Amino acid sequence: MSPAPEHAPAENPSGPLTIAELAALAGVSTATVSKVVNGRSDVSAATREQIEELIRSRGFRRQRRPTKSAALIDVLFHELAGLYPIEILNGVEEVARHHRLGVVVSELGGRHVPGQGWIEDVLARRPHGVVSVFSGLTAEQSERLYSRDIPLVLLDPTGDPDHDAPSVGASNWNGGLTAARHLIGLGHRRIAIVTGPGHLESSRARLDGFRAGLDLAGVALDPALERHSDFMIEGGREHARALLRLDAPPTAIFACNDGMALGVYHAAAELGFRIPEDLSVVGFDDLPKAKWTIPPMSTIRQPLKEMAAAAANMVVTLAAGGALPQHRLELATELVLRQSTAAPRNAKGPAGS
Amino acid sequence: MSPAPEHAPAENPSGPLTIAELAALAGVSTATVSKVVNGRSDVSAATREQIEELIRSRGFRRQRRPTKSAALIDVLFHELAGLYPIEILNGVEEVARHHRLGVVVSELGGRHVPGQGWIEDVLARRPHGVVSVFSGLTAEQSERLYSRDIPLVLLDPTGDPDHDAPSVGASNWNGGLTAARHLIGLGHRRIAIVTGPGHLESSRARLDGFRAGLDLAGVALDPALERHSDFMIEGGREHARALLRLDAPPTAIFACNDGMALGVYHAAAELGFRIPEDLSVVGFDDLPKAKWTIPPMSTIRQPLKEMAAAAANMVVTLAAGGALPQHRLELATELVLRQSTAAPRNAKGPAGS
Repeated sequence: MSPAPEHAPAENPSGPLTIAELAALAGVSTATVSKVVNGRSDVSAATREQIEELIRSRGFRRQRRPTKSAALIDVLFHELAGLYPIEILNGVEEVARHHRLGVVVSELGGRHVPGQGWIEDVLARRPHGVVSVFSGLTAEQSERLYSRDIPLVLLDPTGDPDHDAPSVGASNWNGGLTAARHLIGLGHRRIAIVTGPGHLESSRARLDGFRAGLDLAGVALDPALERHSDFMIEGGREHARALLRLDAPPTAIFACNDGMALGVYHAAAELGFRIPEDLSVVGFDDLPKAKWTIPPMSTIRQPLKEMAAAAANMVVTLAAGGALPQHRLELATELVLRQSTAAPRNAKGPAGS
Repeated sequence: MSPAPEHAPAENPSGPLTIAELAALAGVSTATVSKVVNGRSDVSAATREQIEELIRSRGFRRQRRPTKSAALIDVLFHELAGLYPIEILNGVEEVARHHRLGVVVSELGGRHVPGQGWIEDVLARRPHGVVSVFSGLTAEQSERLYSRDIPLVLLDPTGDPDHDAPSVGASNWNGGLTAARHLIGLGHRRIAIVTGPGHLESSRARLDGFRAGLDLAGVALDPALERHSDFMIEGGREHARALLRLDAPPTAIFACNDGMALGVYHAAAELGFRIPEDLSVVGFDDLPKAKWTIPPMSTIRQPLKEMAAAAANMVVTLAAGGALPQHRLELATELVLRQSTAAPRNAKGPAGS
């Protein structure tokens, strides 16, 4: 065995190294060491080689907890609104119940990055780990969790480049593709899309998949039919109003979440378009409300409960010192066919217009 | 000062007594002492007098916590479904954030009484207190919380006679009365009600208020128009179908929550009744979805978020050793007028029938 490096912590001169010890020896941040340990690519080759060599010569172990962690798992929402958080909570609760963990719920009041108070409270209560839903931590906050060996898993990640934590998402691109193919298969050619915010990974992937579906079928996307919205009901209504007032309105609208699709229903009702006779509508999510719209909504289902359970299980695995089979997990989306889509009529406007 | 009673705990022979010490001295359960301390009436006069005498002679203090309680507040739901829990969580989060408490969420999978695992986990994590939503603990579970000085507050209590914990509810009776008066004021006389489960306090109070509203206006309630359901969308749909198929269908339906009112919308759409032209509908709750039905729903609002904040504040007060100004808090309900109610038409059936 090679001699202990000069700066090795005195209390453990030759055993396997923790992330904190590796960071001290290599003169880099714990987040950087964590990237190497977790097989991430965004670390310089020299740093990677230095850390890998330390691990080869000394071994690696997950840090011992200074005190026992509490039987808790933290779930961080950017906002507690609508049915989306309920699906997530049901998934986490299922796993938490199995492992006798209490589920601590925080919300950021709509912001996507938590404030200083939140991270301090988490460090004080020492949960098994954190599931961050649709929101991200700053690099400094992530590092503070790493340094205390509190694992972090991102659910429906926003795509912020700072994030190198393990994550769970849905196959959003495939969902967009499926929506386009379904509508093209029914005979639609003037198909509009109402997207979510452009800075969100999920939102961009749905749009890209939709565009690919049109492109592969040789259907042109009229730029006037691509509308960028915000995942809110009201946004869906406003964009659908504008679309349905065009000289050549679309015969189908793909709204990139169920809330905006409900907004499309309202615009259609206001302007005298019947669904699906005059206008086909496809949503995304399949929240429980989708089957209770009138008519019941055809939508792309993402398995939010299963995604949340997977994220919670990743936290439990990491907290027990285990390794994850994959760093990024993507669960399948699928079309749920109900009654809001049909073949287009030949007429351009609503009945009687 | 009178001499210390014979059985007074040795370590504190003359100071103020805790609930546990009072219970030991009086030979009764801690739950009984708690009832006396909290001014409840369901204790025998002799026991009450004995305990009051001990408190007069020795004083009373809330029990010292054996170890510091964790910066947590527990919220127990019987079920995490629909938007109701989201409203509750937002109210609790607001108070918890202010006091830097983590919110631990549990759910009972639809049961109304938690299992043994739950109470053990709560005792182990030592929260500041517990808010139990629409669900109750057994007498034994309540006593275990009392004995550890973990306060319990009931939100939207189910009315189980075992419960003597402080509680927060809405003025359900007044809400039922208001619904009836609104519909009578519009000219309706054949008014149906679809209730929630009969064993729930909230459910019975809404029905009683509704009956009172009809009675005070001299309007008879046809027994065929009183339907007992379950607070579920599907239940609302089924009962509304039956009502609308009567030879003399109602011209208005008061559904005792928004979910069942949504079910009424579906039955009306199926059977060709337009809302509000052929049928007026009033819901109860004013969940966020109520304003996004087509047409937007008139409903009796109960301030769930404010109720939850009040319950969380009661827990914080009790955990700090304070006294509650009132044992039972009831927040006002009010009619939110949207577009699902109108004067009745003369015709008995739907348009064209």
